[in-house]
Amino acid sequence: MAYPLLTEGEADRIFALWFELVGQAAVHQEPQRSLAGSMLDLWIEWLAERIDARTRARARADAIAMIATLDGALLMHHLGHTEVAKSAIVSATR
Amino acid sequence: MAYPLLTEGEADRIFALWFELVGQAAVHQEPQRSLAGSMLDLWIEWLAERIDARTRARARADAIAMIATLDGALLMHHLGHTEVAKSAIVSATR
Repeated sequence: MAYPLLTEGEADRIFALWFELVGQAAVHQEPQRSLAGSMLDLWIEWLAERIDARTRARARADAIAMIATLDGALLMHHLGHTEVAKSAIVSATR
Repeated sequence: MAYPLLTEGEADRIFALWFELVGQAAVHQEPQRSLAGSMLDLWIEWLAERIDARTRARARADAIAMIATLDGALLMHHLGHTEVAKSAIVSATR
């Protein structure tokens, strides 16, 4: 899995901004909430198209579950638990 | 698992504020970063004490992985994907 790439260089800065956006979205600030929703939808669609599932709804649900796992690990990384986040994602996706 | 309780009433509002705090922490704002770090450490300690593992380090690592999974699902819930977040957490923890 490409997880380590998401914690390095430009991607690391992008995800820090993603969490900042998500935080403002969680407390219902606009336009952050609409923007985070649109970005997440694009991400789900992109990933769902790459998942081999019986139905489109199943592929979308799997994509959301994968993104939840990924975001959870990245969140721990951004709060300083980099090593454990890496092991968690490796065991969740093997 | 008590997951649904975390998405209702007072807990739902608390986690929205948690994600707001985490977002500011991710972009290195202070005191949010220190505060989020301390809250996360307390949460990890509380959970690690309730995990039966061979070593304390293992219990802490397991606690962080569980919190990553939980936070990932809650993040999807706070961005509007409540149903899929619930299924994801159920399959991750069964």
